[in-house]
This record gives sequence, structure tokens and C-alpha cells, in this order.
Amino acid sequence: MHQTFDLGINLLHVNQDGADHNRAHFDQWGITCFNLMSSPGAGKTVLLERTLAALSNKYKIAVIEGDMTTELDAERLRKYDVPVIAINTGRSCHLDSKMVAGGLHRLSHEYNPNDFDMVLVENVGNLVCPAEFEVGEHFKVALLSITEGEDKPLKYPIMFQEADCLLITKIDLAPYLDIDLQQIEANVRQMNPDVTIIPLSTKTGVGLEAWFTWLTAKL
Amino acid sequence: MHQTFDLGINLLHVNQDGADHNRAHFDQWGITCFNLMSSPGAGKTVLLERTLAALSNKYKIAVIEGDMTTELDAERLRKYDVPVIAINTGRSCHLDSKMVAGGLHRLSHEYNPNDFDMVLVENVGNLVCPAEFEVGEHFKVALLSITEGEDKPLKYPIMFQEADCLLITKIDLAPYLDIDLQQIEANVRQMNPDVTIIPLSTKTGVGLEAWFTWLTAKL
Repeated sequence: MHQTFDLGINLLHVNQDGADHNRAHFDQWGITCFNLMSSPGAGKTVLLERTLAALSNKYKIAVIEGDMTTELDAERLRKYDVPVIAINTGRSCHLDSKMVAGGLHRLSHEYNPNDFDMVLVENVGNLVCPAEFEVGEHFKVALLSITEGEDKPLKYPIMFQEADCLLITKIDLAPYLDIDLQQIEANVRQMNPDVTIIPLSTKTGVGLEAWFTWLTAKL
Repeated sequence: MHQTFDLGINLLHVNQDGADHNRAHFDQWGITCFNLMSSPGAGKTVLLERTLAALSNKYKIAVIEGDMTTELDAERLRKYDVPVIAINTGRSCHLDSKMVAGGLHRLSHEYNPNDFDMVLVENVGNLVCPAEFEVGEHFKVALLSITEGEDKPLKYPIMFQEADCLLITKIDLAPYLDIDLQQIEANVRQMNPDVTIIPLSTKTGVGLEAWFTWLTAKL
């Protein structure tokens, strides 16, 4: 999408300044921020549902929920009795640091931000652009549904290079697919040797404890 | 992604001029062009494999294959003995009309473009941006994997509003998912009442004849 570079103006630098500003606020408040990214339908929202159900009584959590339109996902998460700030990006294919700054502004006005342990950002479903637009997160979490195939880490390298944690979702479907989980992992490692890889299923619960352990160890 | 509008420069208009130019070439050559778009892993490449296997002896077909990196998909399609022009978009999340113009330039130098009936463009896997950047196609074909869930047409409206044909893929997985195919169709219709909807599975073959019929009827 970076025809913008043809104009000699680096919008990524402008975005990065805003991300650094957001991160300074998170640090000041003692909040760890995670940016969850994936293709549409890889299971970000259901993962957040399981995460809030398991952790929201032990940790103070807020969610920033990015969607082009609708508050469908935000409504699902509000049932867990945590602050959910919905950001509609309109025609934009990713959250940017300015949008998230607006969300933090609301959070810090309606609550005491020093009370919070973590902010979970659910980005717009897109395996390309969100990886390039930091929003001030401390950690990037990428989800790849096993249904998407083995080759995606090779074909969409930036997301996999940038991720601190890679969740391979919907592994309950593995018996019905001609897809090799170990090949997915090998392709991810080729892009990013040190990333944490956690295969999981929100349907069976496999892998969720490993995810909660990784997440809370980062606080 | 259109921070670019903040600069007062409408890159979409520049792209549209290029798309109109490409379409004029297609018309002059008697070629019908289809732009296939979806999230990563919805099955665009395997659909093209099935399509080439079924139709490449009856029609003269060329493929323009867009990927950020690698020629993995292009290599899969070259086995079908049709011209496959690979375009690596680098960091760009979609094909644009200028990239496709480069592809047409190669096609028209290496072959007689008047011989061709159709050009199938496989876009970068992304449910957002490709819908806004025409490449000169006559028809937009969107794929939605049934694994992505019922709500995607509501959450990513532009793709579904723009599509002339919507293929719901991987329906062989329906028995293993808590997903209602009729609800997907209803949500698509809410965005685009007149779109052709074809549920299919490249694994079982269900729906492929309907797809071939739709495709060849447009020539």
C-alpha cells in the first residue's frame, strides 16, 4: 500500500512517533500492551473471549477492539465485564497509533489507567498491513489458522518476522485437512527462528494454558 | 490505509485511470478479465488449479499471479501449461493497475494477446485493500472460506459490496464447524443483494461446475 513513499513522505515514521508516545504512556501506567493480528476469521475474538474468561478476575485488563465497521466483536467482549474500547477504522485496513491514542485517551478519562495490568489490542483482520503499523504495543501476537495452509509464513513474511508469539489456531480441524502442522512451524521458524509458537484450539482448549502462561509472564 | 487522503492526493483516482487503460487493452484484445480476491488461505490458488484443469483445453487462459514474495503459487499454476505472469508486490498489500499493466506488457510481447479468451488475476491475500484498487478487471470474484465465520461480510463490507461473484469455499469442513452457511449467505446478501453466491469445495468438487458455468458465461 505504500505508494505514499512515491511522494517522499514516510507515513510509517509519523506512525512510529505516535506509537512511541503511546508506549511511553503504557510504561508510565505500568501496563503491558499486546497487539493481536491475523487474517480475518483466524480466531482473534474467540481467543480474547477465552483469555478474559480465564484471566479477568486475576488481572485488570482492557481491550481495544479495531474493526472497519460494526461493534460486533466489541459486544462479544463486553460480556466479560472489562472496558472494551471500539475503534471503527472506516476504510482503513489496520489500526494506527493515532487511532489507538484516541482509545487510550478515553480509557484514561473513564478509568484510572494506573489500575490496569494489560491492554489487549485486537487489530483489523489483515495479514499484511497491521504488521507495519505499530500502535505502541510491547509485544506482537500473530494468529495463523491451520486452515490457511503451510505456505503463509513464506508468502506474507513481514507479519511472521515481526511476531513475538505465533499462535496456530483451530488445530482441532487438523484431522480434516491435508495440512502439515510441523511444516507450518518450520516455515515460521525460517522467517523468525526465535518466535514462540503455540498451537491451540479454543474449541477443545488445547494450548490455551500455554498461551495464558506466555501472556502473563510478559507482565 | 488511506492516510494518503490527508495529503490531498487521491491515489485511488490515479489507480483508476490505470485500470481503465488496462481494461481498454483487454477490450481491444477480446479478453475478459477476472480479479480473484480473498483473505490468505481461502483457496484462490487451488481454485485456479481446478479451473485450469477443467477449462484450459477449451479456452485460451493466462494468469496474473500476485504475491508479496515468492513464486510458490505461480509455480503451482505453470504445471497447467498456461502463461503465468508472477508479480511480487514487495511490501504492498494488493495489486494495483500499474503492476498489472507491467504484466500485460509482458503478455503482449511474449504472446499474441488477441488469442486469449480470459485473464485470471490472483490478488494478494487480503480481504480489505484489493477491493479498492481496480486493476482493469471486468468482474470481481471474492472468496470467503466457511472457516472464517458468518460475520465477515458485515465486518469487511467493501469486498462484499464490490464482488460480482462470491464463492464460499471449503464447505467440506462444514460438519466440523459451528458455522451456519445460510447465515453467511444472508449476511452477504445484506451487503450486496444481487451478487452470485456459489458454495463450493475444491476437495469434493461440489460447486465447481456452477463456478465454471458462471465464469464461462461472462466471456
